Amino acid sequence: MADQKIVKPQPLSGFPEWLPAEKLVETRLLDIIRRNFELFGFAPIETPAVERKDILLAKGVEAKEIYALSRLAAEQGAGPAETDMALHFDLTVPLARYVAQHFGRLVFPFRRYQIQKVWRGERPQAGRYREFYQCDIDIVGTDHLSILADAEIPSVINAIFTEIGIGRFLIRINNRKVLQGLLQAEGIEGDRVVSTLRILDALEKIGREKVAANLADEAGLTPTAADRLLGRIDGTTDLDGLAEEVDLPLVSEGVAELQAVRAGLMALDVPEENWTVDLSIARGLDYYTGTVYETRLVDHPSIGSICSGGRYDNLAHTFTKQSLPGVGISIGLTRLLARLLEAGILTAERSTPAQVLMTVMDRSLLGQCLSLASRLRAAGIATEVFTEKKKLGQQLKYADQRGFALALVLGEDEAAAGKVQVKALASGEQSLCDQDAIVETVRALLD
Amino acid sequence: MADQKIVKPQPLSGFPEWLPAEKLVETRLLDIIRRNFELFGFAPIETPAVERKDILLAKGVEAKEIYALSRLAAEQGAGPAETDMALHFDLTVPLARYVAQHFGRLVFPFRRYQIQKVWRGERPQAGRYREFYQCDIDIVGTDHLSILADAEIPSVINAIFTEIGIGRFLIRINNRKVLQGLLQAEGIEGDRVVSTLRILDALEKIGREKVAANLADEAGLTPTAADRLLGRIDGTTDLDGLAEEVDLPLVSEGVAELQAVRAGLMALDVPEENWTVDLSIARGLDYYTGTVYETRLVDHPSIGSICSGGRYDNLAHTFTKQSLPGVGISIGLTRLLARLLEAGILTAERSTPAQVLMTVMDRSLLGQCLSLASRLRAAGIATEVFTEKKKLGQQLKYADQRGFALALVLGEDEAAAGKVQVKALASGEQSLCDQDAIVETVRALLD
Repeated sequence: MADQKIVKPQPLSGFPEWLPAEKLVETRLLDIIRRNFELFGFAPIETPAVERKDILLAKGVEAKEIYALSRLAAEQGAGPAETDMALHFDLTVPLARYVAQHFGRLVFPFRRYQIQKVWRGERPQAGRYREFYQCDIDIVGTDHLSILADAEIPSVINAIFTEIGIGRFLIRINNRKVLQGLLQAEGIEGDRVVSTLRILDALEKIGREKVAANLADEAGLTPTAADRLLGRIDGTTDLDGLAEEVDLPLVSEGVAELQAVRAGLMALDVPEENWTVDLSIARGLDYYTGTVYETRLVDHPSIGSICSGGRYDNLAHTFTKQSLPGVGISIGLTRLLARLLEAGILTAERSTPAQVLMTVMDRSLLGQCLSLASRLRAAGIATEVFTEKKKLGQQLKYADQRGFALALVLGEDEAAAGKVQVKALASGEQSLCDQDAIVETVRALLD
Repeated sequence: MADQKIVKPQPLSGFPEWLPAEKLVETRLLDIIRRNFELFGFAPIETPAVERKDILLAKGVEAKEIYALSRLAAEQGAGPAETDMALHFDLTVPLARYVAQHFGRLVFPFRRYQIQKVWRGERPQAGRYREFYQCDIDIVGTDHLSILADAEIPSVINAIFTEIGIGRFLIRINNRKVLQGLLQAEGIEGDRVVSTLRILDALEKIGREKVAANLADEAGLTPTAADRLLGRIDGTTDLDGLAEEVDLPLVSEGVAELQAVRAGLMALDVPEENWTVDLSIARGLDYYTGTVYETRLVDHPSIGSICSGGRYDNLAHTFTKQSLPGVGISIGLTRLLARLLEAGILTAERSTPAQVLMTVMDRSLLGQCLSLASRLRAAGIATEVFTEKKKLGQQLKYADQRGFALALVLGEDEAAAGKVQVKALASGEQSLCDQDAIVETVRALLD
């Protein structure tokens, strides 16, 4: 081969890339998420990574975060040629486009999950990614969607985080109608709603006193009104009492929805320590119209919300005249995984998905080694055969480095007697086993 | 909401998008592929969809098929800003870059699988995609890699296609050294090798007679030499005899490797009807240096090769001075799935991953309905609750449309007696079952 200039590979900032051990953890998480989505009857869809630019821009998002596509060289010797395509930056716009485009061929309520990478041209900084996994579920109705759907969403999330084992978590549930009603009670309506919600959104971060001051300074509330508003959203547990106290349609409607969600979560056996109604969370200032969710790790509040979503009136008004109310939630998996690994809540210990390494000590016995490995695989036990001519010690070192649970060793004597050595790598314990009983022996040791 | 212009969604040519039923089939295929990759000890990696342009172009590929990325608007009001990034067009260049970049943190032989989308700016035409799944495995050694690895690759493929159930298939195996040796025996060496291989590559398509004519016209062989060459590559089964007849180092080396692969496949219990040594296949004209593979559906030859790959001397010579010999194979899943669906070999019958629909006939019994669904899910049985207020008939129609196996119906009488109706949707058979025995009853009916 001719001498060639070597291009030294560099990491791309903002584009995470795991080593196999971390990727195995991510794979496990993706499996748990998907299995639970399916357990609740969500069907998979996958949309292309690229959409037409006019689709992506239809909802009035900021263009500067979008990566556009061009052909590196459209014709021999020519420069880049523009296309009308760009990479999607979330899975909600593609869902809206998908439902509008395939409307006649879908059955409603349409329950879909979608687990894909999305791309955002953000300035790279710690914890921000330009390419990351989103795991979304949505239930979309035509013209109407029962509030029951709003109870199912957090029960799916509860099942997922419980199975992952990320420690104590809390799904906080609110309803935008209640918040808006409470603002209305203080005379805040129309254009002032969003800016006031933004002030309230800082409650957890800067505390009640500062928010009260901001409500007075920026939203024009009297100290008494600010205090009354904060008293209501911060710590109300008696929802019916609140609806009586603040007699406005928005409040009573929102409270009724929250009560329905609460009843649903109880009937679905979601443990009460994992969710709460919290009137202080605002989330999704422009988009959501009813229920809203966010989720935190109780022992790691600095990680922030790890999963959020809510109810919207109309999924796809930019793409179709059909009214499509829905409710959904999204897990930003890449960021979550990175933080869970950093915090030591999850650890990456093995770099192989296989549990058994079949060593090859004596090349003349290779046939028997391969045959033993085949038997284990046929029983569903992932088994690697060490392919290279190396000393047994080096093969066992490889098994240790990769994180195999068991190594099998076949010498001349064992082979002649129809036996094989089984070595547990963590303990170093070794036992002789009949080749005919290899599946049962390995299974028992792995359990 | 203000009246807004509606952007009508259109399919993007070359970017496949499945409905949920087809996507469920794809998901099943991806699961089978992954499970078998892991069963043989391949570890997952995932590389970003984007790479630096200089990395993608380092191997001298054609730039015109590459999609480059730019920021749609780098600053407020500004036009597209070029980046130095582009979408990967295969998983081999990213693997080479990954291994070179993370060399010190990987353990060799490095066995990885990688299942990701790739993008190619091809002119759209039937059966060609611009975005598609590739499912790759490679085993990469340092300085040396045993020929045993070349036997493992087709045994993984055999396990996958057997489990998918795509009907009769044949993995054809050859060795480039044998082919090159046979050309050498006819005096064809150096620059003339690749062009002659290209002539031979057409054997299946245009037949022996025309290839013989082309060998005479274009490669300058005498009719006798062309006939001798074609006789050897087309139908030789006695490899040792061939090595004796054509006494050249390339032939004997290639034959020895083929014999080792053959012995490995037998020891790995790969059924002989699923693979064959076929000296006529050439594959990967520039890249592969030893074993080569391609795979066809016996009853659907027009689909062409559904899986191909081979052995290479050096994975990453453009990125590192470390010698990295390897062997790998790739399944182009998107194209394969499309052809299998077209040919009716696989069918998409259900649009839900759940098997049970819990109907809600009487809203006052909602709590019991939700609780029954929770019990089934806790037992791992995917169950959807019908959320909308619709008549039972409409709910059962929905169950039929989506392809559920069972529907549960709970009326006042059943609820009072602690019972529930279980309806098998295909047969219409209905039975009354104790709520306490719901898991066992459903499991028995699903089996």
